[in-house]
Amino acid sequence: MSCAALFRVEKDLLGTLEVPADAYYGIQTLRAVNNFRLSGVVLSHYPKLVVALAMVKQAAADANRELGHLGAAKHAAISEACSRIIRGDFHDQFVVDMIQGGAGTSTNMNANEVIANIALEAMGHAKGEYRYLHPNNDVNMAQSTNDAYPTAIRLGLLLGHDTLLASLDSLIQSFASKGVEFAHVLKMGRTQLQDAVPMTLGQEFHAFATTLGEDLARLRTLVPELLTEVNLGGTAIGTGINADPGYQRLAVERLAAISGQPLVPAADLIEATSDMGAFVLFSGMLKRLAVKLSKICNDLRLLSSGPRTGINEINLPARQPGSSIMPGKVNPVIPEAVNQVAFEIIGNDLSLTIAAEGGQLQLNVMEPLIAYKVLDSINLLQRAMDMLREHCINGITANEAHCRALVENSIGLITALNPYIGYENSTRIAKEALVSGRGVLELVREEGLLDEASLADILRPENMIAPRVVPHEA
Amino acid sequence: MSCAALFRVEKDLLGTLEVPADAYYGIQTLRAVNNFRLSGVVLSHYPKLVVALAMVKQAAADANRELGHLGAAKHAAISEACSRIIRGDFHDQFVVDMIQGGAGTSTNMNANEVIANIALEAMGHAKGEYRYLHPNNDVNMAQSTNDAYPTAIRLGLLLGHDTLLASLDSLIQSFASKGVEFAHVLKMGRTQLQDAVPMTLGQEFHAFATTLGEDLARLRTLVPELLTEVNLGGTAIGTGINADPGYQRLAVERLAAISGQPLVPAADLIEATSDMGAFVLFSGMLKRLAVKLSKICNDLRLLSSGPRTGINEINLPARQPGSSIMPGKVNPVIPEAVNQVAFEIIGNDLSLTIAAEGGQLQLNVMEPLIAYKVLDSINLLQRAMDMLREHCINGITANEAHCRALVENSIGLITALNPYIGYENSTRIAKEALVSGRGVLELVREEGLLDEASLADILRPENMIAPRVVPHEA
Amino acid sequence: MSCAALFRVEKDLLGTLEVPADAYYGIQTLRAVNNFRLSGVVLSHYPKLVVALAMVKQAAADANRELGHLGAAKHAAISEACSRIIRGDFHDQFVVDMIQGGAGTSTNMNANEVIANIALEAMGHAKGEYRYLHPNNDVNMAQSTNDAYPTAIRLGLLLGHDTLLASLDSLIQSFASKGVEFAHVLKMGRTQLQDAVPMTLGQEFHAFATTLGEDLARLRTLVPELLTEVNLGGTAIGTGINADPGYQRLAVERLAAISGQPLVPAADLIEATSDMGAFVLFSGMLKRLAVKLSKICNDLRLLSSGPRTGINEINLPARQPGSSIMPGKVNPVIPEAVNQVAFEIIGNDLSLTIAAEGGQLQLNVMEPLIAYKVLDSINLLQRAMDMLREHCINGITANEAHCRALVENSIGLITALNPYIGYENSTRIAKEALVSGRGVLELVREEGLLDEASLADILRPENMIAPRVVPHEA
Amino acid sequence: MSCAALFRVEKDLLGTLEVPADAYYGIQTLRAVNNFRLSGVVLSHYPKLVVALAMVKQAAADANRELGHLGAAKHAAISEACSRIIRGDFHDQFVVDMIQGGAGTSTNMNANEVIANIALEAMGHAKGEYRYLHPNNDVNMAQSTNDAYPTAIRLGLLLGHDTLLASLDSLIQSFASKGVEFAHVLKMGRTQLQDAVPMTLGQEFHAFATTLGEDLARLRTLVPELLTEVNLGGTAIGTGINADPGYQRLAVERLAAISGQPLVPAADLIEATSDMGAFVLFSGMLKRLAVKLSKICNDLRLLSSGPRTGINEINLPARQPGSSIMPGKVNPVIPEAVNQVAFEIIGNDLSLTIAAEGGQLQLNVMEPLIAYKVLDSINLLQRAMDMLREHCINGITANEAHCRALVENSIGLITALNPYIGYENSTRIAKEALVSGRGVLELVREEGLLDEASLADILRPENMIAPRVVPHEA
Repeated sequence: MSCAALFRVEKDLLGTLEVPADAYYGIQTLRAVNNFRLSGVVLSHYPKLVVALAMVKQAAADANRELGHLGAAKHAAISEACSRIIRGDFHDQFVVDMIQGGAGTSTNMNANEVIANIALEAMGHAKGEYRYLHPNNDVNMAQSTNDAYPTAIRLGLLLGHDTLLASLDSLIQSFASKGVEFAHVLKMGRTQLQDAVPMTLGQEFHAFATTLGEDLARLRTLVPELLTEVNLGGTAIGTGINADPGYQRLAVERLAAISGQPLVPAADLIEATSDMGAFVLFSGMLKRLAVKLSKICNDLRLLSSGPRTGINEINLPARQPGSSIMPGKVNPVIPEAVNQVAFEIIGNDLSLTIAAEGGQLQLNVMEPLIAYKVLDSINLLQRAMDMLREHCINGITANEAHCRALVENSIGLITALNPYIGYENSTRIAKEALVSGRGVLELVREEGLLDEASLADILRPENMIAPRVVPHEA
Repeated sequence: MSCAALFRVEKDLLGTLEVPADAYYGIQTLRAVNNFRLSGVVLSHYPKLVVALAMVKQAAADANRELGHLGAAKHAAISEACSRIIRGDFHDQFVVDMIQGGAGTSTNMNANEVIANIALEAMGHAKGEYRYLHPNNDVNMAQSTNDAYPTAIRLGLLLGHDTLLASLDSLIQSFASKGVEFAHVLKMGRTQLQDAVPMTLGQEFHAFATTLGEDLARLRTLVPELLTEVNLGGTAIGTGINADPGYQRLAVERLAAISGQPLVPAADLIEATSDMGAFVLFSGMLKRLAVKLSKICNDLRLLSSGPRTGINEINLPARQPGSSIMPGKVNPVIPEAVNQVAFEIIGNDLSLTIAAEGGQLQLNVMEPLIAYKVLDSINLLQRAMDMLREHCINGITANEAHCRALVENSIGLITALNPYIGYENSTRIAKEALVSGRGVLELVREEGLLDEASLADILRPENMIAPRVVPHEA
Repeated sequence: MSCAALFRVEKDLLGTLEVPADAYYGIQTLRAVNNFRLSGVVLSHYPKLVVALAMVKQAAADANRELGHLGAAKHAAISEACSRIIRGDFHDQFVVDMIQGGAGTSTNMNANEVIANIALEAMGHAKGEYRYLHPNNDVNMAQSTNDAYPTAIRLGLLLGHDTLLASLDSLIQSFASKGVEFAHVLKMGRTQLQDAVPMTLGQEFHAFATTLGEDLARLRTLVPELLTEVNLGGTAIGTGINADPGYQRLAVERLAAISGQPLVPAADLIEATSDMGAFVLFSGMLKRLAVKLSKICNDLRLLSSGPRTGINEINLPARQPGSSIMPGKVNPVIPEAVNQVAFEIIGNDLSLTIAAEGGQLQLNVMEPLIAYKVLDSINLLQRAMDMLREHCINGITANEAHCRALVENSIGLITALNPYIGYENSTRIAKEALVSGRGVLELVREEGLLDEASLADILRPENMIAPRVVPHEA
Repeated sequence: MSCAALFRVEKDLLGTLEVPADAYYGIQTLRAVNNFRLSGVVLSHYPKLVVALAMVKQAAADANRELGHLGAAKHAAISEACSRIIRGDFHDQFVVDMIQGGAGTSTNMNANEVIANIALEAMGHAKGEYRYLHPNNDVNMAQSTNDAYPTAIRLGLLLGHDTLLASLDSLIQSFASKGVEFAHVLKMGRTQLQDAVPMTLGQEFHAFATTLGEDLARLRTLVPELLTEVNLGGTAIGTGINADPGYQRLAVERLAAISGQPLVPAADLIEATSDMGAFVLFSGMLKRLAVKLSKICNDLRLLSSGPRTGINEINLPARQPGSSIMPGKVNPVIPEAVNQVAFEIIGNDLSLTIAAEGGQLQLNVMEPLIAYKVLDSINLLQRAMDMLREHCINGITANEAHCRALVENSIGLITALNPYIGYENSTRIAKEALVSGRGVLELVREEGLLDEASLADILRPENMIAPRVVPHEA
């Protein structure tokens, strides 16, 4: 095979470069690949982002066609190329590192070049014959990286949002089911790691479902509010220079239609071009979810601690042998992994925050990192929630008898008796129990402070885990 | 004066202590003061928090009175004591450090003790004669720190919210006015710190107003959603143990009435007792505002850089001599201070986030830090925004002629000509201008690429700063 | 009293202002006070910083005198004024907010003005009569904020370093003593919150002493390396413009002599003027100490959890009643407060890091925040360590019998038997114990796997908590 | 091919699983792969870590052989298997996700299983025939994940350290060369983005070399201090249970010999098992380097801003076309990418910090995240530094004439004249220049304040960029 067959030569402002003959990307993508060998994570790692880029290009082409700036043949070829990418083809051609200088120009050009070459082939030309259809002049027509790229990021996040919500929702259902399953398991509640008052294990798991449910609701309303306003049509800095006055409305309408997302034009395009506020708040919300998951996993690890020298109220399903040196040891590996994912997401939020602060004047050049970190956080969250549900929550069992024994042996039980025997007696009994190692109930019985019928009534689980009319002294 | 007159002796579970005779706080407050000498910032530093604590105590007393658990005389005395605190009296008696162990117990007891002693005096008793009215049994009746304290924090934030919004709104108006004032000042837009395309200085300042306006709107809707759900009535862990079944509804209704805030009971009190999600997201929102302010201040510093060797498009009002060694130097001290405030708030958000993650089981004992950090961020933001408006934005002036000269001398001007002379000519002229140091217009004229009438039309400001029908080739 | 007596009028580049008649600070300080109402924490909050500023001014005056640029009378007056501040007088005159724009100019001028006015009075003049001795021309002679201020910050940190080390050292001793006291208390070690293998409580506390000991050693060597190189003499940007060629060496020598610290001139003054690396690493080291303290306090809270439904191996001294609603409850309030301090320090480190990144060209204008955060972290650490030692560690007691019972009842004990009865038997016994709820030893005895003598030997504490020759199969 | 040929069945505590027939890893690795689908970054991504794991296993085998616990044949097979991995073979068999629960057990078992199966084949057995050589009993003999894994992480970092230092050193040389090349280029220094006083561009680049040089020196001394102390021999929790008393010393000696690194045993193995302090400080140091690089890149972007409406003192080499819409625009893409890497590293440091704080009792189960983040930071830093040097620094050119013109036109020049014409004249001239737009020198000449000879002398570059004897008034 001759050398010519392995490469084609492309040319840009800075000169020429040999592009692999079978590559659909072109010279500018190649320059970016050579420039940025950093994270090793490339665009194709985030399919929704790739799809969103293609949708933006398709919408722009539609608008340009309608305004008479793009010929029918070119339009058809570009549109079909975009459709193929949207269907999942050619994703391996999106090869630029997620961390890149240039404020996303390399990502935008990667899309422009791949689309141009797919279209060229469909039109019967060879890849690289840009005189027939040009990545910049045709595919990127009326666009700038500075409007196409932020629009694609927003759209990419919207396209992936339902999947995230679905994972979260499934996890919530899983916790809620356990809440029902454990509704009858009486156990001690703990505050400050100290014995407090009784509750049910069902209440505890139900609270996990509740707290995550709040995040589901919040994400469901917040994300559309944050991400549907796009700056497409603002071109270089939001003034819309060199764009047709009719272009912005048309392009955004087309993009909404193509994507099925309720996209609207940003009111102030200058502002929208550089503003990263939506990502900061979205990431803050993801961080909140991560924090909650981490707290829950900390609890699961505490509640399953032991089996003999810890709390041991619940059993997590064994997922792998825990130790080569300690026979029989099984560890809470799934919650531990979720904790680490949460810490990663908190770190991502910080990187993103600093990047957002680093914007200058009419653009934020750190936007590639912002996109990367928010996409990474979503992926991690989703995988961690699926893992947690499948490999842990669904298989949790309760040590009901042990839970009950801990309640009966606890000193916190005195709180339930307090309204009946008085604060002074309660405190005295609590102290005596602590010093002697004896049980609170045993001492109360010994002193005859309450008869058995009253005791039985007070200690009935349903009476201890909810408000109740008690003989307060007024 | 005898020693007895300087102190009174109070007693609790752990023994006795000498409390200063004139102190309205009591032994538990004193223990906390002795235990926690940490930040040096005490409760009274945040008057809205103190007021909110008093409102919670007043609402609880009302509910307990209505349910028949609290006698009329005690109720009247407690209620009046709370009213006095709400009016601003006795704030100096809130002396516990904002950083404290015990999940807010010391803050709650500080309130209970101060209120009890004010009430005792009003009833004709001496401070410390708790047999007539007791901090725990009466003031804290049907409450636990674990419901009263989180409720007070939320309420305290709500009470201060309008002031924060007012500061933000004034700042927005200030930017918007400058947007109007500078509407006619043509200047170069910059992306990646490189010359881009023309815009007006008015557009730039208007975008500052827009971006902050988004935060105003967001804060206005988000904060009530986040903070109006309170866990009052959940007592120790949210089960409402030892509370009257009618208490929760009554107490929250009273608190809403007293405070004028639309408070509602949390649906899942177990969850609400330990959940810090509302604070995490609120702080995330404050962080977003801080990030935007920091970005704006970075821009102001860039735009006013020079006067001779920088951008010098605007002048910030001189606030203080800039240097002892460099005569005539005046520095952008106000934006610089805002930047630092923003960094502080990002740090606060992190501390709060880690604290939120640190909750365990039925409670988050790190809540005092969470309250401290969010209150601190609000104070700092408010002061920084007022400072920025008064001492900087309102006095900014534009160097109009210099702005215009930069546009005319820029190479970015070629972008406006691009649709008329073609990409090839544009690129060639741009390169030639760069190499020769000559002006783009000069070269275009020299080559006769456009006649004067066309040039004048293209370069009219209103034509360069907005979309325009241009002769795209289809 | 006439109005004239309440104020004196001072003048600077920007005009005149009324300075309180009794104030030793002057117009530039007053401008800063009016400009920066932000944190509320003023310079006098950090006495070591104030002292360091005075030492720098004294050293500069000495150098200027020796070089013949400052007359004897002025020198004497300045020097004595500095000495008084070093002795602790006039600290209340350092009134500027720690968060300030201007890269420390206001702090430097606060020092210059206070020293000038003290000196003026000593020379028989009135405050404000700067024609006799001028804050800039005389006190600030041959200095710029940009060299005097960073030098003072470094020196201030060095001056306070021994106190920090002393607190840390005392805490280490406290842990080490408990290590000795608990050397005989056998207990279960835990990994991943699961029962692992036996150890002593003494080993556990000794490890706390060890890990903090590493930080003591590290801080002792690192801090002098980081902070003794000063840029005094670099003036505005490190070129030393307008300074006498002999000045730098003399001034730094004098400063070393006055302070007793081994200060040396920075090799590259341009670099030293803007570089914040020393603070970043120092703060990183403080963060490491905070992280260790937080981990230790988490452990203390876990080990003392219960008393009945937790681990309950140790008792923390009761510092305050734990709950109004739950009789007899005592909480680990001291470790909880340390945790929060640690989170605050992690947040401080972040604010400082972002500030360090925000330096531009020849200066870092965010240095006031950097100084503030590192000083705040030191104060918090020191107070938290003292609190932890006095109010918690020294009073910890062990529940020896309970610790021993947990060991004997544990399944982890099987690990010690593993080399003698084989992995297969061990795993089987462990599983059986877990399912049946019976003890490992009981089952081993029942099956006759080991005779009593062997068992007794294997289970002797000293044999379980250290390496031992066991019959490995080769 | 039959189905049996595609898989082999392996068994562990939890049951059986089908392992791909050609896989050298075994059932426990497979479980981990199935459990943890999180980051997508697997162990083989970090070859130094894989090599270090093999070295640890080889050293342990040597020690066990010498102590007589491991037979000659097994030892030879294990040792050779480790050697092959050390040489770079079989790395693709290290397939577990970097984020994993279990405190590294899965990583350790991945190594144990791969080594066992390589050894089995070499001994003439089939993969999976563990009765001849067992991953746990033989390869992991006398080890626990809890000592082998942390030891391998430390060693992995040490093995990669020289490469990091080499990249840093090359970058420093690059800056230093530019410092020499630009030594004669006079330019304005800037503080607070305002014109300050003259310096040379060489001084500026030399300062970049200096500040990074400090980090090179610091890393060179700090890292060995932090990472050479290993806990190998501590087994499960540091007590060395089930290890031969002679094992620790032998194993660490062998590891030092094999790796060529000066490893020593940790003094307190209990402490060393859970302590993450070394990683916290090392990461803090990497963060410091990242912060410095980011600051430098911010400066490069400022200095090259323009070309017409910015500072434009230097030209960065063009790496890719800057804009599709703006002809001729070239952007500072390389420094922009470095900024983003720096933000990522700051985020990594935070994730690691929180993970370090999350350790509990005798172990830190978050260690996998810690290892991941520190390895990621190193990779990113190294690549970013190489990119910065090759694609940016080496090609920077200076706009010497423009630099000089800015100096001559600046108002900051007055500072150099100040000692000769007095502060009053200086201030007046500065103001007049600012208002009139005229030059400082022009005005000084007009007023005859200095003769031409004096002016020429004062303004000679070498006189403006260093200290100089000037006629101070004493």
